[in-house]
Amino acid sequence: MNINVLDLKWLELALSQAQSAVGLSSPNPRVGCVIVNDNVVIGQGHTQAVGQAHAEVMAIRDAQSKGKGLDLEGCTVYVTLEPCSHFGRTPPCVDALKAISPARVVVALLDANPQVAGAGVTALREAGVIVDVLPVEHALARAAYDLNVGFMARMRFSRVYTRLKWAASADGKTALPDGRSQWITGAEAREDGHRFRARADVIVSGIGTVLGDDPQLNVRGVVVERPPIKCIVDAYARTPLNARVFDDGAPVWLACVELNGDDGEYERQAERLHVLRTAHPQLLVLAFSEEEKGRLDLNELWAYFYSRQINEVHVEAGAILNAALFEAGLVDEVLMYVAPRVVGAGKLVAAFDEGVNLDALVEEGHWHWSAPALLGGDLRLILKLN
Amino acid sequence: MNINVLDLKWLELALSQAQSAVGLSSPNPRVGCVIVNDNVVIGQGHTQAVGQAHAEVMAIRDAQSKGKGLDLEGCTVYVTLEPCSHFGRTPPCVDALKAISPARVVVALLDANPQVAGAGVTALREAGVIVDVLPVEHALARAAYDLNVGFMARMRFSRVYTRLKWAASADGKTALPDGRSQWITGAEAREDGHRFRARADVIVSGIGTVLGDDPQLNVRGVVVERPPIKCIVDAYARTPLNARVFDDGAPVWLACVELNGDDGEYERQAERLHVLRTAHPQLLVLAFSEEEKGRLDLNELWAYFYSRQINEVHVEAGAILNAALFEAGLVDEVLMYVAPRVVGAGKLVAAFDEGVNLDALVEEGHWHWSAPALLGGDLRLILKLN
Repeated sequence: MNINVLDLKWLELALSQAQSAVGLSSPNPRVGCVIVNDNVVIGQGHTQAVGQAHAEVMAIRDAQSKGKGLDLEGCTVYVTLEPCSHFGRTPPCVDALKAISPARVVVALLDANPQVAGAGVTALREAGVIVDVLPVEHALARAAYDLNVGFMARMRFSRVYTRLKWAASADGKTALPDGRSQWITGAEAREDGHRFRARADVIVSGIGTVLGDDPQLNVRGVVVERPPIKCIVDAYARTPLNARVFDDGAPVWLACVELNGDDGEYERQAERLHVLRTAHPQLLVLAFSEEEKGRLDLNELWAYFYSRQINEVHVEAGAILNAALFEAGLVDEVLMYVAPRVVGAGKLVAAFDEGVNLDALVEEGHWHWSAPALLGGDLRLILKLN
Repeated sequence: MNINVLDLKWLELALSQAQSAVGLSSPNPRVGCVIVNDNVVIGQGHTQAVGQAHAEVMAIRDAQSKGKGLDLEGCTVYVTLEPCSHFGRTPPCVDALKAISPARVVVALLDANPQVAGAGVTALREAGVIVDVLPVEHALARAAYDLNVGFMARMRFSRVYTRLKWAASADGKTALPDGRSQWITGAEAREDGHRFRARADVIVSGIGTVLGDDPQLNVRGVVVERPPIKCIVDAYARTPLNARVFDDGAPVWLACVELNGDDGEYERQAERLHVLRTAHPQLLVLAFSEEEKGRLDLNELWAYFYSRQINEVHVEAGAILNAALFEAGLVDEVLMYVAPRVVGAGKLVAAFDEGVNLDALVEEGHWHWSAPALLGGDLRLILKLN
């Protein structure tokens, strides 16, 4: 490839810029851009909130703000994702780049968006700009992909990337029989968990967890411009009026089953929803088909997520919802924190009905472990769909 | 310390010699010895079978065999464990060393045996030999310890070191509900498991596993001079006459409960034992107290292991025996192979009775993870008591 060590250094800088778009740019991808002239960085930036400037435009503005009328002609532009060539909510970045006449553009990863893939590179080349693209298997290309794994899943596979997180003991228990669980894993693992929450557009939990643990389901210890939406899978709207999930005012989606007037539960659900909505204006109530008694159709909920351009879903739920998500084929990644202890009797990570097997023994090679890490005394294991 | 880089190189060679004593030297420790003169190795060896020569004597013999009357005076001796100074089944190695008048002895680790600890070093120094000992936290000292973790546990803590091995899916299932399990983990993980079996003096399983899986419980793919004893926890002697565990003729210990004549099971157990013993002369029947119906007192069985100078026990059992061993406080290490898949319904790694908790949430810091490894597609995780 025509990309040298110095290029990789600037791409790494662009990638750390892209990292700053986490918790800000969704549903747009996390992109970073660095403009270099004579081996000096003269501008850098990352994707802003939806409808606002993309990384390339931010980097150009940054360069221009440093000297009125600064001429960028002949510079090299490093960008972590192929510049867009289509009119979306903002004009194409390719046009913004052409306007400054760079000598060369270095791209870490081609866009997965079918409207864009390859077209940005072509348009730049047609304008006489040299364009180099990292091989897809390069570590930095993979890092650019991983940072946008949700965006990529949505564009390439029309899928909402779903990360299921659990913290368990070495014998696979998430809590003692009496429900005590908060201290299964240590502080470092919990902090790491919040960094993953910060990546999500939606944090999902189930009514069992809300009633049992009363979680806040928000991001703590990591700054996010746009806090994730909280979504509670709560067939009959049993979420308590004073649940802590409402405390910080962030949006809450309540996913219920759609009942009809014949159902005895109908009036009670409607009454509870009325009370909840009145008390919590941030609440959005969603209704889905009842797949079986008390269980809503998770595929419908995930289709709704897709319709709302959700890139990454982070699930922190109990054994029943976890198992249901596996059975529905909705899980793309399992983020496991495993404590260095054996607990004994307790709650399982996923409670499958007797006889449910995912044929996983047969379907080898669909999942793989990514590199394990020690965080404090706990292990972090990540299982990913291939 | 007075130990330089070259010394470490010879100690590493001695350690690889010690490795060759696995599957041979028990209950004696795995020790390696290298004799160096003018930076040339002139002899090396490792502990032989019980009652035969120790590492130091083997290395001296090796050196002497190379040249009749070869004078070893002034050489340096590298040994992975402090030379013994007491008369056991063989004369003290310290005397053998003094006889060749080495200038210096370098020791990786002091002996844990209370009869020996420090005495070997002292005796050599009194004879005018320079003795250097690695700091206990040095990687090679730790490796010498780990290689003898069972011997050390027996000497220091009067404990039989017990390694519990399981292979499970990411959701903690060891088999599908119908019992299929063989292919949960891949070939590399299974081979690695046999390397751990090879370390053991006894491989333990339960009657449930024998009836369900009919395992051979032997070491395959690794050469061992002295195959581990197989021990089946089988309260009522239900092991089938044609169980594969008998196929290779290696010793089998059947741990039963001691019944009295009033018990209806008594006659049936006696009859089955008679048939088994007649067919399989390698069978040793052991009787222990019945702790509760159908369960023998595992502490008694482990005390028997201790009385037989067992260093390392390797357990490959099902959920019930695994849980019972944790409850009895007999587990020192959990060797886990975790497959990259979620299986659904299935058998647990350990089935604790409702309400049994090991207070592990409270007793923090008793266990730790050692470095995780990827073997093929599977993770190997090792949990150790501190």
